[in-house]
Amino acid sequence: MKQQASITMIPRAELKAKPQAGAKLGFGQIFTDYLFALDYVEGKGWHDARIEPYAPLSLDPACMTLHYGQTIFEGMKAYRGEDDRVRLFRPRLNFERLNVSAKRMGIPTLDVDLALEALRTLIRTEADWVPAEPGTSLYIRPFIFATEGSLGARSARQFRFLIILSPSGAYYASGLDPVSIFIEDEYVRAVRGGTGFAKTAANYAVSLLSQIEAQERGYEQVLWLDGVERRYIEEVGSMNVFFVIDGEPVTPALNGSILPGITRRSVLELLKHQGRPAREVHLDVDKLMELARTGRVTEVFGTGTAAVISPVGRLAYGEESVSFTYDPAQSLAYRLYDDLTGIQYGRRPDELGWVEFVTP
Amino acid sequence: MKQQASITMIPRAELKAKPQAGAKLGFGQIFTDYLFALDYVEGKGWHDARIEPYAPLSLDPACMTLHYGQTIFEGMKAYRGEDDRVRLFRPRLNFERLNVSAKRMGIPTLDVDLALEALRTLIRTEADWVPAEPGTSLYIRPFIFATEGSLGARSARQFRFLIILSPSGAYYASGLDPVSIFIEDEYVRAVRGGTGFAKTAANYAVSLLSQIEAQERGYEQVLWLDGVERRYIEEVGSMNVFFVIDGEPVTPALNGSILPGITRRSVLELLKHQGRPAREVHLDVDKLMELARTGRVTEVFGTGTAAVISPVGRLAYGEESVSFTYDPAQSLAYRLYDDLTGIQYGRRPDELGWVEFVTP
Repeated sequence: MKQQASITMIPRAELKAKPQAGAKLGFGQIFTDYLFALDYVEGKGWHDARIEPYAPLSLDPACMTLHYGQTIFEGMKAYRGEDDRVRLFRPRLNFERLNVSAKRMGIPTLDVDLALEALRTLIRTEADWVPAEPGTSLYIRPFIFATEGSLGARSARQFRFLIILSPSGAYYASGLDPVSIFIEDEYVRAVRGGTGFAKTAANYAVSLLSQIEAQERGYEQVLWLDGVERRYIEEVGSMNVFFVIDGEPVTPALNGSILPGITRRSVLELLKHQGRPAREVHLDVDKLMELARTGRVTEVFGTGTAAVISPVGRLAYGEESVSFTYDPAQSLAYRLYDDLTGIQYGRRPDELGWVEFVTP
Repeated sequence: MKQQASITMIPRAELKAKPQAGAKLGFGQIFTDYLFALDYVEGKGWHDARIEPYAPLSLDPACMTLHYGQTIFEGMKAYRGEDDRVRLFRPRLNFERLNVSAKRMGIPTLDVDLALEALRTLIRTEADWVPAEPGTSLYIRPFIFATEGSLGARSARQFRFLIILSPSGAYYASGLDPVSIFIEDEYVRAVRGGTGFAKTAANYAVSLLSQIEAQERGYEQVLWLDGVERRYIEEVGSMNVFFVIDGEPVTPALNGSILPGITRRSVLELLKHQGRPAREVHLDVDKLMELARTGRVTEVFGTGTAAVISPVGRLAYGEESVSFTYDPAQSLAYRLYDDLTGIQYGRRPDELGWVEFVTP
């Protein structure tokens, strides 16, 4: 649906104090002065595009999202380059994916161009909030959620699209830090016919207990197996996963229950561009552990917006645990991290045309 | 965790106008003057039990429930008997199930006795809102949701427990009205290892699109198959399902992906009490359709809090559709409906001790 692109600006009386340069920002804790908002009412469509002060929402206790979880989101970042210009990384892909999620969840889709224009306008308004320290960024959270107050267990008739912004710290304080991963054999994140490919609350809600229990066992994240056979590798925590097996990079093929990550896609495209294409495979966990045990798996790493690339130092399945040495000089994970963040922060040429400048 | 049972009462300046006697109430649209609220903060536990005016909640745009869906709920009713006394039906089972849901979703559990006392106090405060027309009731929605404002994809550290009340109309305006059901063969609601047994937003969110598409095809609800083999009958829409096969009532056995309905349990216990026990079975959809085609399935009905008993008039799977005759005089569904609502509204003796009086 095409919408009018005019955005009303509602100023706030007083701006917040911005974090001091060098302050510990954490992740998703601090929010900027403004957010973008757009409302949807059945029969009327999307309307009332506005940039307004970031402030608590007033929601009915019967707000359907609180009861039935009809909500979707995206995650992306704005980066301040060494040239001081603010950049986005492939933002169109995020809004296209938001629409894929919307269709699966019975949520009205957005006009991607309007959403992009809203994002650019908001980022320009809040450009001073994009931090400058190495590895920091302005985390961007677009989301759409049901606002209607009703307890009928049906699709809602009123929604709101918001974009909120959060200056966030470097994911790795000092170099990539390998994580330990527990392969989950009890709980299931998603199944064919479900919502695994959509970025929706349900997929995160169902995974929280597994995460808690893995941390109690001393692991930082879990690796999910498919929900039908509990045998094929799907994804890690909230990242996609890659392996280097016999020197060749591979990743699980998208199958409807894996989130189609934009970092995953960028890694695949970058490897192809660099002449070392990765294969998309169906990877059996027993086979993987056997390959790992015999030294044929030399690297494991996750890909996602938050960490970009996250090397895995240890992988446990049942009683067995295999460790991987992480050596930046030899590591594909490190090279990909350096390449991708190089493009994002403007340290490297953007040969694939992935970066969009928001400020002049 | 034991909590202090003292509940603060925060009065409202002006009470709302109650619906006129005989007004069309609908379901979950109108809310009473007050709600019960209790807050949780990690390290401090549940605190600040209060009855306060029903009013919009003030929630941060980063409220974790809006992003990651960490929320659970219950559904129950208060009934006004012909003797004018207000009754609850097995309310302890609802709060026990709420705690089962809480454990699965990484949400802190409640003291069941405190929750029951909160409910009784709230219902007594709002007793005038319990409608008196036949088949009407005061719908009760207890729920717990994450209130913390943070974008970290982890279990929250702050939650709120609310009980809200909604006077609701008779589900059937004139006698039980058979529904048409489409057996879903594409989408999956829940899978072993997932959250199907918990009353959590995720299970409802993932089922909305299927419901929309079934309605577009002319069916009122969907029947869910298991997520692994897509072959075994699980439940109907948001109800459990029973069949009468060769004269014998059967229902799918609980398996971790089926919601353990309190109406389902009450039907099983009532049938046993009446000397006609039902069997809990694994029911293959192809076998079911064959039995239906050859006339050996004489009744299909759903069980749930909203409708109590909902006869199914038509069942479609792929290209095939089978109809069932609904004759109240012969129908087990009708008899169960009459028995259960008889107990709930006090028209029949409460032989199994299921009813709790809230008003003298």
